[in-house]
Amino acid sequence: MTPYAEMTKDEMKKELEELHAEYDKFQNLGLNLDMSRGKPCKEQLDLSMGMMDALYSGADLTCEDGTDCRNYGTLTGIKEARVLIGDMMENNPDDIIIYGNSSLNVMYDTISRAMTHGVLGHTPWCKLDKVKFLCPSPGYDRHFKITEYFGIEMIPVEMLPTGPDMDVVEDLVSSDEAIKGIWCVPKYSNPQGYSYSDETVRRFARLKPAAPDFRIFWDNAYGIHHLYDRDQDHLIEILAECKRAGNPDLVYKFASTSKVTFPGSGIASLATSKNNLEDIKEQLKNQTIGHDKVNQLRHVRFFKDIHGMTEHMRKHADVIRPKFEAVEEIFDRNLSGLGIGEWTKPKGGYFISFETLPGCAKEVVAHAKKAGVTMTGAGATWPYGKDPKDSNIRVAPTFPSLADLKTAAELFTLCVKIVSLEKLIAE
Amino acid sequence: MTPYAEMTKDEMKKELEELHAEYDKFQNLGLNLDMSRGKPCKEQLDLSMGMMDALYSGADLTCEDGTDCRNYGTLTGIKEARVLIGDMMENNPDDIIIYGNSSLNVMYDTISRAMTHGVLGHTPWCKLDKVKFLCPSPGYDRHFKITEYFGIEMIPVEMLPTGPDMDVVEDLVSSDEAIKGIWCVPKYSNPQGYSYSDETVRRFARLKPAAPDFRIFWDNAYGIHHLYDRDQDHLIEILAECKRAGNPDLVYKFASTSKVTFPGSGIASLATSKNNLEDIKEQLKNQTIGHDKVNQLRHVRFFKDIHGMTEHMRKHADVIRPKFEAVEEIFDRNLSGLGIGEWTKPKGGYFISFETLPGCAKEVVAHAKKAGVTMTGAGATWPYGKDPKDSNIRVAPTFPSLADLKTAAELFTLCVKIVSLEKLIAE
Repeated sequence: MTPYAEMTKDEMKKELEELHAEYDKFQNLGLNLDMSRGKPCKEQLDLSMGMMDALYSGADLTCEDGTDCRNYGTLTGIKEARVLIGDMMENNPDDIIIYGNSSLNVMYDTISRAMTHGVLGHTPWCKLDKVKFLCPSPGYDRHFKITEYFGIEMIPVEMLPTGPDMDVVEDLVSSDEAIKGIWCVPKYSNPQGYSYSDETVRRFARLKPAAPDFRIFWDNAYGIHHLYDRDQDHLIEILAECKRAGNPDLVYKFASTSKVTFPGSGIASLATSKNNLEDIKEQLKNQTIGHDKVNQLRHVRFFKDIHGMTEHMRKHADVIRPKFEAVEEIFDRNLSGLGIGEWTKPKGGYFISFETLPGCAKEVVAHAKKAGVTMTGAGATWPYGKDPKDSNIRVAPTFPSLADLKTAAELFTLCVKIVSLEKLIAE
Repeated sequence: MTPYAEMTKDEMKKELEELHAEYDKFQNLGLNLDMSRGKPCKEQLDLSMGMMDALYSGADLTCEDGTDCRNYGTLTGIKEARVLIGDMMENNPDDIIIYGNSSLNVMYDTISRAMTHGVLGHTPWCKLDKVKFLCPSPGYDRHFKITEYFGIEMIPVEMLPTGPDMDVVEDLVSSDEAIKGIWCVPKYSNPQGYSYSDETVRRFARLKPAAPDFRIFWDNAYGIHHLYDRDQDHLIEILAECKRAGNPDLVYKFASTSKVTFPGSGIASLATSKNNLEDIKEQLKNQTIGHDKVNQLRHVRFFKDIHGMTEHMRKHADVIRPKFEAVEEIFDRNLSGLGIGEWTKPKGGYFISFETLPGCAKEVVAHAKKAGVTMTGAGATWPYGKDPKDSNIRVAPTFPSLADLKTAAELFTLCVKIVSLEKLIAE
């Protein structure tokens, strides 16, 4: 294919005319499709319906240690759930707190607690003039919303295929005491699907922060969310690496079963060092008597162990892998060689990241919307919703049916072509 | 019976000798009983096991409005749960947010949000030099722990059988801008089992706080937790009363199903005015994508409607009423006329409040502990754990078996007698 930029203006205009005709056809279909959020589809949810039978009226809801899961208590979660989630997170069950249904909520609470009470005895952040966070970008919009809500200044850091630009991270973290944290989705990152390289993880574990209360917010949301059976990314376990590096307290690590069982009805967890755990438990005991142990037990009885969970994740992969492949096939077929966009090809997670020509993302999303396809808002992947190049679009292939997804992807590439051409013509 | 205070010292000593012999017998029993926390007993938990069958692998987990409860979303809770809990709380379903498993957590979050972001646009409490709360005392220890944790100064207000001393409440609230809230358990109060009189509720709704961001924290934890079928306390609904009084934004009202279904696996809720709800939702959307809708649906499918819930609560009453009656019978039989203690006779809730002679509560609890019966720590019912008269002990009759409870209550009265006599002899 001829790259668009090498066409003459007349060729561009002719091409644009044909594309507009095609776009009109899409508009006439009256589509109403959604590629905006990383939501599991119905077939994925159906995979966990067996969990509804894991507990029943005749079942004994007693833990191995004799705890009646139906009653109050057990602040850090039942032992067998900490073992299962420990295996999922690659952490010691004793280094884990099991929470309620949302790891986002745990992250929010962690920031909120740092604001009002500080980290490990340091000054509460709300008493400081300025608190800053590093935000590898494009990144996860809901992370950025939390820090924005608490008035924390967000500093974007470039995301490379190996993870955040560690030269920049090291430089900033070691020189600015106001920098108190960094948001990370280290495996199958949101939205790129990148996994941090060994080198990146090692450099994270060896950070020398100017602020003693600096913490890495390590949101391992997609730790076991592979698309392929063998061709999987591997991530060095961060808590162990930090311990080896003599930096045991540096990380809060988060995970959940939201995209393993049911979003909103899973269990979330935090793993961190003994010191951090004690600090958190002292606070947590004022906040709650304990989280939903019955649901913890339900998860354990359903999966039995990590092998059960791994087999379960293979079924998820079987449902969504064709969707990722379909999107990639359509992007390849329609856009390769045109020089108007680049996209990632992740081996796991929930997203594909698309880079348009500079200044095109908002228009592409608007065009798609007008023809009935909702994408994640352009800019959402950047702090304050401000994508400096207006080029990043997060593509979420999991929720629509395969047929709908193909239609949506075709339309999306069409919108990319139209907007890019209009841009090139106007130049 | 002769009141102890009217005995001669010799009579007292003789009586004490006999009591000590009796106490020794208890000690030899090697008891290990717990009357410390308001926990439902096994028989109560068994009442809700049918809820484990309410959802099953073949069930359709779709809401009436088409929402798939298994997926993300629905920040304020599914409609049918808001209807059910609305009926439980006597509030409009549209004035309610359904949360996770713990109303304590909702209260904590409400305070935390006020600290970092303020109430309805007012200055965040963490930016103020001084924040104070009124604490009707004796009261609920976990309320006091939250305010203590956030460094909020707690001012005890006397609890009368009609509720907090409203002369004092009105006077303080209208004169001191630093007073930002008051903790209330308005029905079957913790620990007395008192229900606020109509007059008290009306005076609450008509408060004229000096602080525009003053809020009543109305923890209606025992709203439907009656012991008797007809002889029930009735509470004027506070949100409606506030609206009528022209004070719609004055109250945050909390409730949960923790002592209806399973503690820790129920659903919690907050009801408040439109203005407050909007304020909270703006915050909440940063904290979570939504709470556990599957568990909300499970509750709705199990109870069907408020009549189902009411019938369910009758079964709870049948289990725990004999326990309350047994404790009262033993207190009456062993202590009436001795002039060494007073206790409440609630028609609902989870507690009986016991008042010893001044300066005896700690010793009584220690004596009981030494003989193998754990009571709520003396002082726990007061802010900072400091009971100025050292006289209040919270008695929680629900958790032990009836037989154990009787033993524990007998021992408790024995300890009251011993400690009171020792005190009178030493005077």
